[in-house]
Amino acid sequence: MPEKRTIPAQSENFSEWYIQVVLNSGLAEYAPVRGCMIIKPYGYALWQNIQTELDRRIRETGHLNVYFPLLIPVSFFAREAQHIEGFAKECAVVTHYRLHWDAHQQQIAPDPDAQLTEPYVIRPTSETIIWHTFRKWIQSWRDLPIKINQWANVMRWEMRPRLFLRTSEFLWQEGHTAHATRQEAEQEARQMHQMYLEFFREYLAIEPYTGWKSPRERFAGAEQTYTLEGIMRDGKALQMGTSHFLGQNFARAFDVQFTTQEGTREYVWATSWGVSTRLIGALVMAHGDDHGLRLPPRLAPIQVVIIPIWGKDEPAVEDACQQIARMLQQAGIRTHIDLDREHRPGWKFHEYELRGVPVRIVIGPKDIQQRAVEVARRDTGEKQTLPWNDQLPTAIHDLLHTIHNTLLNQYKAFQQQITVEATSFQQMAQALQDGKVVCVPWAGSDHHEEQLQEQHNVTIRCLWTDDYEEPCIVTGQKTRVRALIAPAY
Amino acid sequence: MPEKRTIPAQSENFSEWYIQVVLNSGLAEYAPVRGCMIIKPYGYALWQNIQTELDRRIRETGHLNVYFPLLIPVSFFAREAQHIEGFAKECAVVTHYRLHWDAHQQQIAPDPDAQLTEPYVIRPTSETIIWHTFRKWIQSWRDLPIKINQWANVMRWEMRPRLFLRTSEFLWQEGHTAHATRQEAEQEARQMHQMYLEFFREYLAIEPYTGWKSPRERFAGAEQTYTLEGIMRDGKALQMGTSHFLGQNFARAFDVQFTTQEGTREYVWATSWGVSTRLIGALVMAHGDDHGLRLPPRLAPIQVVIIPIWGKDEPAVEDACQQIARMLQQAGIRTHIDLDREHRPGWKFHEYELRGVPVRIVIGPKDIQQRAVEVARRDTGEKQTLPWNDQLPTAIHDLLHTIHNTLLNQYKAFQQQITVEATSFQQMAQALQDGKVVCVPWAGSDHHEEQLQEQHNVTIRCLWTDDYEEPCIVTGQKTRVRALIAPAY
Repeated sequence: MPEKRTIPAQSENFSEWYIQVVLNSGLAEYAPVRGCMIIKPYGYALWQNIQTELDRRIRETGHLNVYFPLLIPVSFFAREAQHIEGFAKECAVVTHYRLHWDAHQQQIAPDPDAQLTEPYVIRPTSETIIWHTFRKWIQSWRDLPIKINQWANVMRWEMRPRLFLRTSEFLWQEGHTAHATRQEAEQEARQMHQMYLEFFREYLAIEPYTGWKSPRERFAGAEQTYTLEGIMRDGKALQMGTSHFLGQNFARAFDVQFTTQEGTREYVWATSWGVSTRLIGALVMAHGDDHGLRLPPRLAPIQVVIIPIWGKDEPAVEDACQQIARMLQQAGIRTHIDLDREHRPGWKFHEYELRGVPVRIVIGPKDIQQRAVEVARRDTGEKQTLPWNDQLPTAIHDLLHTIHNTLLNQYKAFQQQITVEATSFQQMAQALQDGKVVCVPWAGSDHHEEQLQEQHNVTIRCLWTDDYEEPCIVTGQKTRVRALIAPAY
Repeated sequence: MPEKRTIPAQSENFSEWYIQVVLNSGLAEYAPVRGCMIIKPYGYALWQNIQTELDRRIRETGHLNVYFPLLIPVSFFAREAQHIEGFAKECAVVTHYRLHWDAHQQQIAPDPDAQLTEPYVIRPTSETIIWHTFRKWIQSWRDLPIKINQWANVMRWEMRPRLFLRTSEFLWQEGHTAHATRQEAEQEARQMHQMYLEFFREYLAIEPYTGWKSPRERFAGAEQTYTLEGIMRDGKALQMGTSHFLGQNFARAFDVQFTTQEGTREYVWATSWGVSTRLIGALVMAHGDDHGLRLPPRLAPIQVVIIPIWGKDEPAVEDACQQIARMLQQAGIRTHIDLDREHRPGWKFHEYELRGVPVRIVIGPKDIQQRAVEVARRDTGEKQTLPWNDQLPTAIHDLLHTIHNTLLNQYKAFQQQITVEATSFQQMAQALQDGKVVCVPWAGSDHHEEQLQEQHNVTIRCLWTDDYEEPCIVTGQKTRVRALIAPAY
């Protein structure tokens, strides 16, 4: 394996810390394809755990999984005006369907005789091809609602790629639904937004800010975009997921009408919603510390690592490790024993700290004698001795639960502490300069928002309403709307 | 929903029967992208059930899931001579990374200013990019073996596409492993071949022919290709999965060497193996009958459908259906109630027959009175009355098990009956004319095989050895090798 590079402290260089943690913990590495990554076994196991639970929740709320093609005819993008504006600019275009040996250039190259009459785009998102198909699926109110989801890869050409956070190709799920009424579609968009929030809280141990996007930050083609904005440890916001109420925009663009119960013809109402492998970046940056990852137990590929202290009687220690591992595995705890003889325990401690394994159990000759094990928590570093008996799996289960709650509470405390309220533009500017994220009364326009970005390099991450009115920091107009203003990934 | 087209009898027009069953049962439909399909909820649920069990077996045998990029630089294909010969001819080529508005042509088009210096190919398979990466991952014998797998979409441009069987894009898993010795790699290739066989037998209720491919039919770049060849109900063979021993070909092409325990440098040994959404086509064609699908119970998205016969007291019937559904669901049986009021029971019977649901339970006023339910089997059409009591879930469980075995035995009987042995070329030719698949002693060359294809439109599907020698049907040379000769998909 290649030599490890040093991981700087978060406070020293957060973005270098991030990259080195991702690389050294074995989550992912750069691919020999511009802007793309290789998701390594540890990273993929994390994604698969996210997938399993999220898929369960998506199906439980009545959605069915499907698979639509990777390639989308270019002309489909021309249909929805804003959509092409937002997506067609940064996409991979397929123009040929064969390679040949180019004798002139002495290399293999696209065969000019195999040029497509209409080029294809690798999907940046699938609204267009799905609504093209909904036209065939939907005739009457009886065909509605349609609630589907797909797990897929998508591509958006990235000029400044960053592992998990911004890669040209990424993995995601995209939900797409079609409804007979505006109300039902709006409710669906909000319901999935809420589903994401619960999933993030219960599995990622992150409770992000929630609200809707300003018109400027909306999904291309949406009437309303609901968002979840986590604050990372460097004080920057990360958009963790979005749920869009698409109005009748895609139905109009692809002429999808239905016959109502009253016999009239109406356009269908739409939503779409998704989260991606970016969530792995969120886990790293929301919980990680100077020693590496701190993974929330319900998603951690390894929940407990057992490390032997060999002593004189190696077989006895190995046997004890195996016995304890079996006990825990039988109780459904993802347990790994590191029996490697080449590295010393201290090296292993560091390794599993870096990889964020929530619980470490150390077993040596003394522990066997005393029928006890030393248990260390990754989140707080605390150690305790637990009796080695039938109750051990339950004790570890409880500990994993406690670790989840501790990570969640630490996250919430951090988010609260870094957020300040400002009632004037000047207060806001000062708070931003102090590295805070700021909550302000807001009734500004696109133009004001643009200025904000130009002057302070921040954006409105999300909007929500409060109970009382206050004067907007840019217009002075009284408003119940609040805006979260922060720098962002 | 669009009007249903008539499904012809299998004996009348098998290939039209196949297409109509796939379309009308809701497995998939054609996409507005050349050679591609949309996998609909029922088809995807089937695929997800295949995935879940196969993924379990792949992980259980020590393989870790990963994800490599969709795009592969064209130059990677030039490295392995046979591989490019086999794959580069039929692939989607990405040449641009942006679209723009072409004012001259008045349409959106690839932006000439955004042409890639090196084009990318959408992966037809991932050996090249994986072995490029293995070069970084492998230095010494300590880094071996590496055993990884990925679930991904792949593209091979198809001129004559057919739903599930041959589509330009399809979903699959591809395993890739790296080993220190030839022996270990060969054993891995055989082990995964065997794993597929067991999975097919235990979940698909298909026990295909197994063996290795002739040099002519091998995977491009393999030293040995192990294959599984199911015989479909029209007497054509379908390649259901392959496992390749790749020798040191890819290690040489990408210069992947390792330091042995003795300190020497050697090239790494490789395997790869995969199965795809084609398996859904196999399920349709191996078990389907003139009424539609017959799904093996362990993969069926719906294992039991409950159909009410309304009578006078609708709420009582609905309540009984719900009670029975709950009992079965609690026992882990995938149960669906069709409470639709618009269609008559007879219409529903046909519908779920078409969709291949293994067990149908009918509940009407009489059944409630008698505390009994009418249970019909999709595989044999047999009906029986079962008492409605605590034992019902166990009885249904047993019935599902019996249906699995019946489908498997029917498949095996069919395969045996359609296969004949021939000891001369003439016998073989006659048997092929009679619509049989033929097993013959074989010591022929590529050339003989080519003639076979030209004259009879058949190929050698697989080879294996028997206990005794017989003269080859083309060379007369004594051989223990047997060849299965058949027309194929």
